[in-house]
Amino acid sequence: MFSFRNDYSEGAHPLVLETLAATNLEQHVGYTEDELCAAARASIVREVFSADTTGVLARAGIAPQDIQVEFVAGGTMANLLVITAGLRPYECVVAAPDGHINVHETGSVEARGHKVVTTSDSAGLLTAQGIDDVMLEHCYGTNYHMVAPRMVYLSFATELGMVHTAKQLYDIRAYADSHDLMVFIDGARIACGLAASGCDVTLADICACADAFTLGGTKNGMLFGEAVVIRNPAIGKGFRNLMKQQGGIMAKGRLFGAQFGALLDTTGKQAGIPEAQGDEAAYFSLGRHSVKCALEVRRILEELGFDSWTCDSPTNQQFLTLDNERAQRFIQLFGCEDCGKPDREHTIVRFVCSWATPPEALEYLRQAVIDAGLA
Amino acid sequence: MFSFRNDYSEGAHPLVLETLAATNLEQHVGYTEDELCAAARASIVREVFSADTTGVLARAGIAPQDIQVEFVAGGTMANLLVITAGLRPYECVVAAPDGHINVHETGSVEARGHKVVTTSDSAGLLTAQGIDDVMLEHCYGTNYHMVAPRMVYLSFATELGMVHTAKQLYDIRAYADSHDLMVFIDGARIACGLAASGCDVTLADICACADAFTLGGTKNGMLFGEAVVIRNPAIGKGFRNLMKQQGGIMAKGRLFGAQFGALLDTTGKQAGIPEAQGDEAAYFSLGRHSVKCALEVRRILEELGFDSWTCDSPTNQQFLTLDNERAQRFIQLFGCEDCGKPDREHTIVRFVCSWATPPEALEYLRQAVIDAGLA
Amino acid sequence: MFSFRNDYSEGAHPLVLETLAATNLEQHVGYTEDELCAAARASIVREVFSADTTGVLARAGIAPQDIQVEFVAGGTMANLLVITAGLRPYECVVAAPDGHINVHETGSVEARGHKVVTTSDSAGLLTAQGIDDVMLEHCYGTNYHMVAPRMVYLSFATELGMVHTAKQLYDIRAYADSHDLMVFIDGARIACGLAASGCDVTLADICACADAFTLGGTKNGMLFGEAVVIRNPAIGKGFRNLMKQQGGIMAKGRLFGAQFGALLDTTGKQAGIPEAQGDEAAYFSLGRHSVKCALEVRRILEELGFDSWTCDSPTNQQFLTLDNERAQRFIQLFGCEDCGKPDREHTIVRFVCSWATPPEALEYLRQAVIDAGLA
Amino acid sequence: MFSFRNDYSEGAHPLVLETLAATNLEQHVGYTEDELCAAARASIVREVFSADTTGVLARAGIAPQDIQVEFVAGGTMANLLVITAGLRPYECVVAAPDGHINVHETGSVEARGHKVVTTSDSAGLLTAQGIDDVMLEHCYGTNYHMVAPRMVYLSFATELGMVHTAKQLYDIRAYADSHDLMVFIDGARIACGLAASGCDVTLADICACADAFTLGGTKNGMLFGEAVVIRNPAIGKGFRNLMKQQGGIMAKGRLFGAQFGALLDTTGKQAGIPEAQGDEAAYFSLGRHSVKCALEVRRILEELGFDSWTCDSPTNQQFLTLDNERAQRFIQLFGCEDCGKPDREHTIVRFVCSWATPPEALEYLRQAVIDAGLA
Repeated sequence: MFSFRNDYSEGAHPLVLETLAATNLEQHVGYTEDELCAAARASIVREVFSADTTGVLARAGIAPQDIQVEFVAGGTMANLLVITAGLRPYECVVAAPDGHINVHETGSVEARGHKVVTTSDSAGLLTAQGIDDVMLEHCYGTNYHMVAPRMVYLSFATELGMVHTAKQLYDIRAYADSHDLMVFIDGARIACGLAASGCDVTLADICACADAFTLGGTKNGMLFGEAVVIRNPAIGKGFRNLMKQQGGIMAKGRLFGAQFGALLDTTGKQAGIPEAQGDEAAYFSLGRHSVKCALEVRRILEELGFDSWTCDSPTNQQFLTLDNERAQRFIQLFGCEDCGKPDREHTIVRFVCSWATPPEALEYLRQAVIDAGLA
Repeated sequence: MFSFRNDYSEGAHPLVLETLAATNLEQHVGYTEDELCAAARASIVREVFSADTTGVLARAGIAPQDIQVEFVAGGTMANLLVITAGLRPYECVVAAPDGHINVHETGSVEARGHKVVTTSDSAGLLTAQGIDDVMLEHCYGTNYHMVAPRMVYLSFATELGMVHTAKQLYDIRAYADSHDLMVFIDGARIACGLAASGCDVTLADICACADAFTLGGTKNGMLFGEAVVIRNPAIGKGFRNLMKQQGGIMAKGRLFGAQFGALLDTTGKQAGIPEAQGDEAAYFSLGRHSVKCALEVRRILEELGFDSWTCDSPTNQQFLTLDNERAQRFIQLFGCEDCGKPDREHTIVRFVCSWATPPEALEYLRQAVIDAGLA
Repeated sequence: MFSFRNDYSEGAHPLVLETLAATNLEQHVGYTEDELCAAARASIVREVFSADTTGVLARAGIAPQDIQVEFVAGGTMANLLVITAGLRPYECVVAAPDGHINVHETGSVEARGHKVVTTSDSAGLLTAQGIDDVMLEHCYGTNYHMVAPRMVYLSFATELGMVHTAKQLYDIRAYADSHDLMVFIDGARIACGLAASGCDVTLADICACADAFTLGGTKNGMLFGEAVVIRNPAIGKGFRNLMKQQGGIMAKGRLFGAQFGALLDTTGKQAGIPEAQGDEAAYFSLGRHSVKCALEVRRILEELGFDSWTCDSPTNQQFLTLDNERAQRFIQLFGCEDCGKPDREHTIVRFVCSWATPPEALEYLRQAVIDAGLA
Repeated sequence: MFSFRNDYSEGAHPLVLETLAATNLEQHVGYTEDELCAAARASIVREVFSADTTGVLARAGIAPQDIQVEFVAGGTMANLLVITAGLRPYECVVAAPDGHINVHETGSVEARGHKVVTTSDSAGLLTAQGIDDVMLEHCYGTNYHMVAPRMVYLSFATELGMVHTAKQLYDIRAYADSHDLMVFIDGARIACGLAASGCDVTLADICACADAFTLGGTKNGMLFGEAVVIRNPAIGKGFRNLMKQQGGIMAKGRLFGAQFGALLDTTGKQAGIPEAQGDEAAYFSLGRHSVKCALEVRRILEELGFDSWTCDSPTNQQFLTLDNERAQRFIQLFGCEDCGKPDREHTIVRFVCSWATPPEALEYLRQAVIDAGLA
């Protein structure tokens, strides 16, 4: 069996393991204060600014020295740190109803004292209009009997694999600027988001639109690790104290440096990845691979007669809404995740491809569906 | 002008002030450990059990000695204490969307680390079905990526002045029993709830259906004060430590004893209240007064042509949905609270009567509406 | 028996009860937004600035319009609000080991996420040197593995009845200014502190030395209530949201206005209090009364042969260190509080006088000690 | 230069890297629900029970099926999870003053709402007597104005490298049993503790004495990872929900399984480690190596004339108290950690050896001290 359960079923891309092995006996100071991390931080800043072909960062007054990069092991930790760092105790974060922080982090934000207030946006695609409706309900922050919205959260790509357009992001940024809100973009799957078919957003756009965002490694070829990129000092202040307090700082911080360094290297080691475009870093090529495989999964399933897609995802996650019985069959055959029930008769199942999905997996999928009589 | 803004616009019923004055120079130990509080606790237990004409408490195995009564100054404090005491860190409380804890306590529950998860019930009338839908979404508490529902919260009466029927409450109790949930009934306006027209619920039913409930004093003739009645020791354990920690224990705890004592006295002092039934305590008669006045407000406004009631409230709060302009006029004339906008053209305004509403206020209302040309 | 247990054994001074009664049926908006509170706020600001006979406030650049006054029911609530409002999540507050927040508030500060770090100062008398030792241990806030000190807390008077000198307070202020610390002065017993024999501190000095301080009412003739006086907007921002969230805002906020208004009135009603000096408000005269009685208690006990004072308190609390047996006798006879054991053979007992202590109580004390054969 | 800064300066033992590489492309379900973790859990339980040569576990009524094992990335996370899981909101944890949770986790315990109360024990060696003094001060948990002690925390080995004797641990266990306290043993350096010269404690004793304890991997040859071993279901209940909420569950949980599996393997792969005793797992041999090297460091420094040891550590950390100038030289030469100043003239420096310390490092140390003229 091949599992399409998620994009963290495998270990790490060979480039990552090689770098870990190569640096293994070097002695480094702890807590991400080492040289490998310094280099990885520089690489991240380089990628952000080199993606800015039209000058959005300069126009927004953002310079490389304004960027703070911290590393944590996982996405929930990254999210709770940014949100906790940015909010005063009575302030809340606004998210789409299916935002990861709202449903799948066991109340992590609330555990730090903050309410997650939800808009009526769908598929995780937060909109300026959705935010404004929430602001209106909350008297634009002036009613002391209510929480005060102060940050908005969105994922790129979203829980359902969707991606905002550049216009949508800049609309949110403009709304935030005019209403004293911060914008936090959860990039746990940012490599797939940027590689989405039709995506018109660059890493520079993400940076220009966000007070803080993350670059996910766990779901893109690393053993673990998320980079938190902060450009608002109101979030960055004391961030490392907060990391320590929340159990989010890693003793062997060098592991982040080695891993991000491996995938952001542009000196030639990454060249062999099939989907590589130009001399881009492996980090981005791996996202392309994941998306390409998932769109192929979609094509195969469509050929086999499935078209009840939950939404029109252009990324590495594809969701089918199926009757309960067929859903269970898919779950058994491919390890698909059960993503809940839109009604009592149907279940949503998820197919995910990763940096590690091999061509054989796609052929296996087609054949297994046919063999099982599901087509 | 007479204000129909709320039921805490005035001070305290004369019986309360008299008792405070009469006991003023007595020396009492602090923190509700005094004799006045002991007597008030006994009175509360007496009222609960004397309301049990059909034996529901005995059948539920509830005896007077199982009841713990604590006193706090306000409703938000009562709510946060009960919820915090009952939940482990990853557990959540389920409420209707317009539950007080969800919208009007500035994220007080979240500030203690717990998510408030909402059903799709309306008018605050939580239902067993609504709870079950939430349980289903949360995999009946078995998914560690999500918060685990462990307590349900409802108000009696609700934010919109509605009251559950006895059947609705017992259905919720039965559901809770079969799903390892606790039930918390917020009785900030319980005296009005019990006095509602058509109400078939007694204080004994409340006690039988709840793991903990409150008896509100602030909105029913006291200067301040809520009695928290606890019959589940999982909530009661360490409750007084928690009270102290949360700033919810009052040094001159005697004030609760004096006030609840005054309004629960049944030795004759309360006899003069017009709405008194039998030899009931003033606490209940004051609720009757509030409700009677509010229903009269409703009758008057209906006579004057208003019928766009937001819901069919049988208690001391009446809500009209009006076009924005007329809503503003009512707010100016009667201090009505602006209760939000169902759409951009309309506003909900609230009329509240209290234990202190005089007959003249009703006549003033009628005349002022006519004089203002609103009829 | 007369109890010397504490200064909140009785109800309220008659001026307070009279004002409550006189305003009882007035309708006021809630949550301290009413006119009685507005007047009380103005009175507090007036008292602060009228106490400034030497221009310290002007020199510190503090003007009346910079002062924010909020009202809460009790001291623990006041403390937790100020501390929570002022600190980021990883910051801590520094206090003397026997600071109220460190030992007698059931971990209230920690419950909001902040560590209380203690100096080695004694009798609650925090010093600049004590603070600096803590700062050194915490690497002056630069070590992200440790909490970062950001606020210092002291009581005026302290838990043991001591008062800082003006020089001590200004030294702390100067230290705080040079080390980016805030100063919070807990004035639960400020009226007694200001009335202490030998006290050279004025209310203006308190204001000049503190980012926020409180004026206690509960222990000085009110039923309840503390005024929180804030002059640092970093604490004041969103303070009312925080009050609501923490259950610290009172629906009938008018009660604070009425009570503080009564005791800060200077139009003549207060003139009858024996200890009144000039036309000062009753608030201060009541503190004088408490202190005068307690010093008389001390004199009487010294005459009877007791001299093992725990410390040399100039205020309304006097502490004797006694062998365990005699301590128990005092506790039984006068309701003295057991304040712990310095060693296994001795116990500290506390005598407290209040605004309500009558002359007879002092005579009773003398006679009862003699009658019991304790002298 | 060779750094003696800490025991997490290097990456992972080759056995760990090999296992990670060997399992890299296997697909596993996430969040430690995979087979590698299942095997590692079984190995941990096996080690605990196989260490019980005298039947302490059976006498304590502890069976393998009572043991719950969870995996988290770091020590602060492990600590905060166990403490949060075990305490109600007003309960506190008792530790020695230099307990890691008290000084070096940036208030992590307080950030979850709990006070850390300290004894007067030294060198981290918590004693039953020290705990009892704290219990006395806290009225044995009966005073609701104070936090209630409910758990004790100790490290094995301590921050200063000391180890409790078996008698000391069993005394604490007995005290805890008779006072309704839980015992939590932080085993971040447990492998070195067990390997300490003169240690009479086994892993079975640790388990018998603790409600929960940890087995540290980060400081003993793994890239990262701590195993949390829980035998009190009051801690274990909902532990995985809490892990998720606190950002402490790892998506690629398999990494724990692979790493602990590698170091707990007893099928022969580990045989080559020089210090191996019998067929013990590498996990224990690596601890022996660390300790042996550190004791050699001590011997070398003593030969060179240094004898101002801060305490008599039998484990892999050695502390010298030096005048400030010499301390700085050692810090520069060997990357020693500055462990604070006992007085203004002296500094404590730390030498740490790890599983990776090579023989050359010890020779380098001797020569460098001589070359620098420090001897």
